[in-house]
Amino acid sequence: MRVTTFSTRGLFALAILCSGAAALWPIPRQLSTGTSPLVLAPGFAIVVPPNAPADLHAAVSRTAGNLRTDKLERLVVGRASADKAAVVGAKALPKLTLALAHGAAMRNVATEAVVPLEERSEEYMLTVPADGQEATLSANSTLGLLRGLTTFEQLWYDLEGEATYTLEAPIAITDSPAFPYRGLMLDTARNFFPVADIKRTIDAMSMTKLNQFHWHITDSQSFPLVVPGFTEVAAKGAYSSSMTYSPSDVQDIVSYAAQRGVDVVAEIDTPGHTAIIHESHPEHVACFVSSPWSTFANEPPSGQLRFPSPSTRNFTASLLSAASTLFPSTLFSTGGDELNTPCYAADAETQQILNSTGQTLEGALSTFTQATHGALRAKGKTPIVWEEMVLDFNVTLGNDTVVMVWISSQNAAAVAQKGFRLVHAPSDYFYLDCGGGEWIGADPAGNSWCDPFKTWQHSYTFDPYANISESMQHLVLGGQQLLWTEQSSPENMDSIIWPRAASSAEVFWTGATLPDGSPRNGTSALARLHDLRFRMVQRGISAIALQPLWCALRPALCNLSS
Amino acid sequence: MRVTTFSTRGLFALAILCSGAAALWPIPRQLSTGTSPLVLAPGFAIVVPPNAPADLHAAVSRTAGNLRTDKLERLVVGRASADKAAVVGAKALPKLTLALAHGAAMRNVATEAVVPLEERSEEYMLTVPADGQEATLSANSTLGLLRGLTTFEQLWYDLEGEATYTLEAPIAITDSPAFPYRGLMLDTARNFFPVADIKRTIDAMSMTKLNQFHWHITDSQSFPLVVPGFTEVAAKGAYSSSMTYSPSDVQDIVSYAAQRGVDVVAEIDTPGHTAIIHESHPEHVACFVSSPWSTFANEPPSGQLRFPSPSTRNFTASLLSAASTLFPSTLFSTGGDELNTPCYAADAETQQILNSTGQTLEGALSTFTQATHGALRAKGKTPIVWEEMVLDFNVTLGNDTVVMVWISSQNAAAVAQKGFRLVHAPSDYFYLDCGGGEWIGADPAGNSWCDPFKTWQHSYTFDPYANISESMQHLVLGGQQLLWTEQSSPENMDSIIWPRAASSAEVFWTGATLPDGSPRNGTSALARLHDLRFRMVQRGISAIALQPLWCALRPALCNLSS
Repeated sequence: MRVTTFSTRGLFALAILCSGAAALWPIPRQLSTGTSPLVLAPGFAIVVPPNAPADLHAAVSRTAGNLRTDKLERLVVGRASADKAAVVGAKALPKLTLALAHGAAMRNVATEAVVPLEERSEEYMLTVPADGQEATLSANSTLGLLRGLTTFEQLWYDLEGEATYTLEAPIAITDSPAFPYRGLMLDTARNFFPVADIKRTIDAMSMTKLNQFHWHITDSQSFPLVVPGFTEVAAKGAYSSSMTYSPSDVQDIVSYAAQRGVDVVAEIDTPGHTAIIHESHPEHVACFVSSPWSTFANEPPSGQLRFPSPSTRNFTASLLSAASTLFPSTLFSTGGDELNTPCYAADAETQQILNSTGQTLEGALSTFTQATHGALRAKGKTPIVWEEMVLDFNVTLGNDTVVMVWISSQNAAAVAQKGFRLVHAPSDYFYLDCGGGEWIGADPAGNSWCDPFKTWQHSYTFDPYANISESMQHLVLGGQQLLWTEQSSPENMDSIIWPRAASSAEVFWTGATLPDGSPRNGTSALARLHDLRFRMVQRGISAIALQPLWCALRPALCNLSS
Repeated sequence: MRVTTFSTRGLFALAILCSGAAALWPIPRQLSTGTSPLVLAPGFAIVVPPNAPADLHAAVSRTAGNLRTDKLERLVVGRASADKAAVVGAKALPKLTLALAHGAAMRNVATEAVVPLEERSEEYMLTVPADGQEATLSANSTLGLLRGLTTFEQLWYDLEGEATYTLEAPIAITDSPAFPYRGLMLDTARNFFPVADIKRTIDAMSMTKLNQFHWHITDSQSFPLVVPGFTEVAAKGAYSSSMTYSPSDVQDIVSYAAQRGVDVVAEIDTPGHTAIIHESHPEHVACFVSSPWSTFANEPPSGQLRFPSPSTRNFTASLLSAASTLFPSTLFSTGGDELNTPCYAADAETQQILNSTGQTLEGALSTFTQATHGALRAKGKTPIVWEEMVLDFNVTLGNDTVVMVWISSQNAAAVAQKGFRLVHAPSDYFYLDCGGGEWIGADPAGNSWCDPFKTWQHSYTFDPYANISESMQHLVLGGQQLLWTEQSSPENMDSIIWPRAASSAEVFWTGATLPDGSPRNGTSALARLHDLRFRMVQRGISAIALQPLWCALRPALCNLSS
């Protein structure tokens, strides 16, 4: 957090902890709501501060548009008709006025969205009086104003086109994220996702205040990223010339994301998960499509960068360096998961290099990682690695390195004990692909390796501080849900992600417990998540139904013991 | 099957069993393919027989349109470019000529699609010569011609807009379904599905030669069907006035379906699964929203028709009779699953009726069922029931009654032993909703009751004759996959159904084994199912990816031991 403080600090006194009434997701950390109806005035306006950047104006326009087009009727029996009487004679809200706190710099939202995590300023204060006075939204950054606009949009329902209203005025919110890293990972290598699908996913992330789009761009199956200076890798490694991300596509995505408060963290997974580089650079890939694949890789095809080779090390460092310049984020992931050692044992060239240099495989891996990370640091990037680079191999890493914990939530504590900052991405809570069955052929009885399906109720119970002693809790940057796409494609993208991924969005925004200190609870959260899901559908995001509509309209009647 | 025989019987000699080369789904029962390339001539035409009905002309137009717009490149490395050399100089197919067998009546496709199952004629013969002579499609009915057109559409690939071609001419197919009932069930009561979504699902069914759309229209959560004479039931029991199926909507759906070879089998589930009728007819519903629901129903809300009441019996019989007139099918399901007996034990009015008449609950259920089935038979319908009506209750049923086996595939044999015709709909193979987690609130550790997810590889191994002695195998009408929609909605409809439901489409079209007598095998089927999935996507059906595209292009390299 920046040290700039709110000039309207008196509002803190108004806020009570988690009224739980409003249908906000994630739930603000301090929220007070009333019981008065309030409608948007016919000429309702959002007033932008002087000198506001274009992307804040654009965000305000999007909010104004959503207020017109969401057309979400409240989820109660009778829907809008149930509220008609209550809204008659309601006061009207003339405007929402945005302001930056005194002393805060007026910068682009897109700029604020990609500053280092420790400098990211997302806190905001929002008040919506019940008496027809203007609403106010203040923050320490335009990014904070964006977060507040997102909250504001979720306050309103449609009265069959006759009014846009809330029943809970006055509303006072003081809000800020509990964790700076709140992500979603998408794998675009197992199957390709067009730019439009990625943008729609970013829209949904922004709705839930997720701020880190972890883009697992490449893998052994395809290399869709066109890297300047290394265009041959995608030319031969993408599924087709149309299934690539050109530099201008990347620019389009990172701009779109940043304007919506989302920082794009790219990953080029190395040295494993790189088989397809063989198509353009056979000299750098060991055991490409070796048989049986299960000996040489966790999934087909096998093939890994021959990292002990100085030429491969230089190639990889240069490739990563060039790729990193496409992304404004200060974070960049070099991967490092599922390194297969039998591959190298069987690779004559690797063995010859190791023998001639006297290096161990692990020593060579350390040298390789220092080279790639060094190249990234030279570009101002902080490297991210998967947990094996810390827990399974004795690789020398800079203290700044961020570690993603994926194999098990149980491993987070060990990473913290080694002093590294970490992001929770555990398969046992956050893998969106689990439970969809086996995709390897000839396995009729197979199920997914990480069965069962991770329900939102389960991921919602995740404790970011489990087994992590208080002195190490500062190392927890946050977490994310992840979509590996062996069995996913644009066709099921929305429905497999949403609204499930909103569960971790609330865990990492609102914190280890609810604002009142109580543990998170799917039952009490359910009504709010329904609301979010219906709002997503209104915005063209194909989020799935969580329950029969009968239950969505009657929150108390579909619980286990009701 | 009708007794009309093919006039071109000599073609049988050409056919060899299951070449497995062509990308057809379901695989024809007799298929011979060659190795010559063949393109559609620029003026390629489909010649329709004289006096062909309008809906056959329309089907031909759709086929011609699909041939133009599918734009599916063959699933090989390099896609279309890999085939360019092979297609150079290929012969051109000038036309496909359709003919009915001698003596066959020329009737509407829509008429043929809804005749009783035992009269349904879907067999066809298709030849595509390699030498530029015309292709021929013959059948004993326009419905058979439709099936042949569906097959013909699957033969062709796109050469980047330069040609539409096959590499497997000549092709000779003699095909007919192994089972007359090949269905798909959709529940439109837990969540509502607009007409357009149902039509798209029927399109996909028709692509896979599924012929029975089992429409579970109503349930305890909502009653969207507007029944003439009983409009109050939907007026008060639908989720909203826009979430209903009017008689004209039904007419639209059944016509659309029948023209595509799909018979719509309606279900109004009784006497359980009827809570929402309480909204319009409280006098007919016992234990509406009793607490806890788990005592009185399998899921919320509780509430069942008070079937021992003569007035309720008459109401239900009249309602079903009126509803049945909306559907041309000769089949109609009265449901009968998950009847909750504690509900009736706790219902004073039920107990009073039973005491005063001296009937047992089971006796009253028999009386009720005879009344509802009698009303349907008076309308020319054959009743369908869920298995409990045969296995759990001693209900007197007509011999013609069709029984759906759902609780376990193990129960089919018991139903057959009682002499009833049956449809396989087992939760352990065919429930598409399994594995998606628990939807009841306050159950963070819950998973779906029928875990795990039913993979297509698993459902594809289903044996229609397992445990059923040869003398009873004639009782097996076929089977279907089913989508219960507690956690589904239009947003995930395509992706949860397709291409998975194609697995049973092949089981029940092609039969208990593959045409060559070998057991069905997901590995050898996978390439064809990929092809179908990509073709579905081309047609706007959001079928999910089965594997990374890398694997889809290299069928042999992603098996367990490759």
